[in-house]
Amino acid sequence: MSIDLLIHSAAQLLSLTGDAPKRGAAQGDLAILRDGAVAISGEHIVAVGDTLDLLALADARTRQIDARGKIVLPGFVDAHTHAVFAGDRANEFEMRLQGASYLQIQKQGGGIMSTVRATRAASLDDLIAPSRARLDAMIAHGTTTAEVKTGYGLDTANEIKMLDAIAALDAEHSIDLIPTFLGAHVVPEEFKGRAEEYVSLVIEEMLPAVRRMKDKGGRMKEPSPLFCDVFCDDGAFTLDQTRRILTRAKELGFGLRLHADEFANLGAAALAAELGAASADHLMVTRREEMRAMAQANVVAVLLPGTTFGLGKTNFADGRAFVEENVAVALGSDLNPGTAWCESMPFIIALACRYEKLTPAQAIVAATINAAASLGIAARVGSLEPGKLADIIVANVPDYRHLAYRFGANPVETVIKRGRVIPPKSSSLPLDARSSQAI
Amino acid sequence: MSIDLLIHSAAQLLSLTGDAPKRGAAQGDLAILRDGAVAISGEHIVAVGDTLDLLALADARTRQIDARGKIVLPGFVDAHTHAVFAGDRANEFEMRLQGASYLQIQKQGGGIMSTVRATRAASLDDLIAPSRARLDAMIAHGTTTAEVKTGYGLDTANEIKMLDAIAALDAEHSIDLIPTFLGAHVVPEEFKGRAEEYVSLVIEEMLPAVRRMKDKGGRMKEPSPLFCDVFCDDGAFTLDQTRRILTRAKELGFGLRLHADEFANLGAAALAAELGAASADHLMVTRREEMRAMAQANVVAVLLPGTTFGLGKTNFADGRAFVEENVAVALGSDLNPGTAWCESMPFIIALACRYEKLTPAQAIVAATINAAASLGIAARVGSLEPGKLADIIVANVPDYRHLAYRFGANPVETVIKRGRVIPPKSSSLPLDARSSQAI
Repeated sequence: MSIDLLIHSAAQLLSLTGDAPKRGAAQGDLAILRDGAVAISGEHIVAVGDTLDLLALADARTRQIDARGKIVLPGFVDAHTHAVFAGDRANEFEMRLQGASYLQIQKQGGGIMSTVRATRAASLDDLIAPSRARLDAMIAHGTTTAEVKTGYGLDTANEIKMLDAIAALDAEHSIDLIPTFLGAHVVPEEFKGRAEEYVSLVIEEMLPAVRRMKDKGGRMKEPSPLFCDVFCDDGAFTLDQTRRILTRAKELGFGLRLHADEFANLGAAALAAELGAASADHLMVTRREEMRAMAQANVVAVLLPGTTFGLGKTNFADGRAFVEENVAVALGSDLNPGTAWCESMPFIIALACRYEKLTPAQAIVAATINAAASLGIAARVGSLEPGKLADIIVANVPDYRHLAYRFGANPVETVIKRGRVIPPKSSSLPLDARSSQAI
Repeated sequence: MSIDLLIHSAAQLLSLTGDAPKRGAAQGDLAILRDGAVAISGEHIVAVGDTLDLLALADARTRQIDARGKIVLPGFVDAHTHAVFAGDRANEFEMRLQGASYLQIQKQGGGIMSTVRATRAASLDDLIAPSRARLDAMIAHGTTTAEVKTGYGLDTANEIKMLDAIAALDAEHSIDLIPTFLGAHVVPEEFKGRAEEYVSLVIEEMLPAVRRMKDKGGRMKEPSPLFCDVFCDDGAFTLDQTRRILTRAKELGFGLRLHADEFANLGAAALAAELGAASADHLMVTRREEMRAMAQANVVAVLLPGTTFGLGKTNFADGRAFVEENVAVALGSDLNPGTAWCESMPFIIALACRYEKLTPAQAIVAATINAAASLGIAARVGSLEPGKLADIIVANVPDYRHLAYRFGANPVETVIKRGRVIPPKSSSLPLDARSSQAI
């Protein structure tokens, strides 16, 4: 077998071995190799070990990356994003700085509905173009796999358009995307006062339509899990509505995720446990007994500190409590135009350590193998092991703790996705045609 | 006069005209031109105006940058950094996550003293090399001028070594550096229990030595102001010690800055007003009457939200209160290895808007013209006007508010320093010599 790419001499290589989510993660879970190396053939990892041993596998055609003084780790898996959308909400950001609350903005027809209007108005191509730029930024910050939700269409045609955009972006872009149907993101304005009718539409029309689309197969790089998510909270969907939507989704073969306990505790985390959801996300006001139920039912807690930060609030989820209750914790950016326009998982790690009380080791576990587990793809990505995809980051820091310790800049130097080195996006000068001078 | 470089067609060009610090800054202070352009000859700006008008000034040799859909603004001025140091303190970061306080860490011989030990042990070259990497990251995030403090030498020879490092970095690097002598950063361990003796050393030996060094001139790009700073707080220097050091510094012609009111209010902000300091910095526990005294005495408030964030705390300075009291507000990164390893002024802006209650316009004023004013160089940089240095950022966002609205990634696409386009640092693949394949 020929080795196409060999990354060697890493100060620390974090292999994070295993396919199962890690609970109560400690430094040992990082499975650190000093002077570590990883060998790649085609799209896959074929060996992980000491530099001297692996150098023996290289031949003249093996491309080598010297990671001396640097760390090597699995590509980040972003467990929760809304990366596909049109428009922006900088206006609302400024309103909020002046004191308007999230729910106030939403009640004034802003909030999610303003992105819904922009997304509905956009053609498929107009939806793909700005989203592509976000995926470029995400992969530059080390994200090699991301979940992406619908939920800015809120009618069957536009939800399908969003799934088409996600599939097209997965097919064209290096990042692997995992789609989640979030038709129950918010009750759209044309159903104002008729939430039950909208719930029926989701259950009777959208879910089967999305399921048929999935069965047809499509443009995705490879067969992908398909999830259904519901935003269960004040101003969104009630616990009963959430239960009905997710129960039907489960019957149709969807994996389940929930927006749970972001503003009010309606019992969504307990519901996630009851229904055997893959994840419950946000979890800022979750009680200890609900954490224990999640642990029992193997529900991964997806924490989204970027949202709390984006809103300028300080009521961050208590990550340490989830760890103490033996819940597997994952991280997501929640990239979205309303509360968290953030493409950087290193920044999410820096936040989670400071304000959600995770250790650097726990945060790295949460951003890799545990996020992969929450998406049902931990056999494919999330650790550096033979047989897994060669999704790998080289970060220009001497110790894994620097990923959390430093903040604001991007520590990720080189990203390998499916064995291919991602060329850095040219931040070169946008010279126009009239320029006659070389740079 | 020939135009060497023309940046044109900006969606918004923020000119921020004026040489004086702006108080109670509002959007109007940004002096936004739509479809704006800026013309550069040599190191300086020669014209700012409408794209059509300025295009008429271009000739065949004019290099052009098309900023369509983007914003153009003055390079950031970082008003407070400790960017020159050796070693790191990732260990202490982890200790603090586990509950140790800043003062506890300091009392255990960690904290600032651990960086002092590493900096003293470093040769001049070993001090310059890691600092250069930080300056590279800073300019990539749009910082074109930065203040840099000594304070990790804490004896005459090592404080002078730090000033030599700052001068050497200013001379070799595109960023302009403004040095501040911070011999009174902390009482070094060899003076434990003998703080007064150390204060005498600062006053009688260090200040005159630094002054003589300054008089000799040196390697800096151009004559620079020289400041003296004292860390006046619990665990550092008393108000009386601070007053004596700064009074002597003033007699010797230093400009004055203070680390004031970070942990305890010892009266440092009021002292800054009394002594006519250029700035008082941190200001997390400053009272309204002290703010009014600062306004009266033209002391700029340098806010450092990265420090609060870095420590994982939430007691951010109340920026809005300073604005209300008519104090000119500036921003700094406080880049340092203990509490804020952050090279990104866009991130500092995002923080200041969310947690220090500045508007995006106020934060941009604070990171440009007001920071320049606090350093006494507002006639040279901080706005886009004919005669000022051509220190200019092109950011790939359609509206200035996006600098604060988005976070975690770097919105800065192109940086021009003294008329020269800074080439992006190659984040290209570090291939070793054995590689035989092209990228």
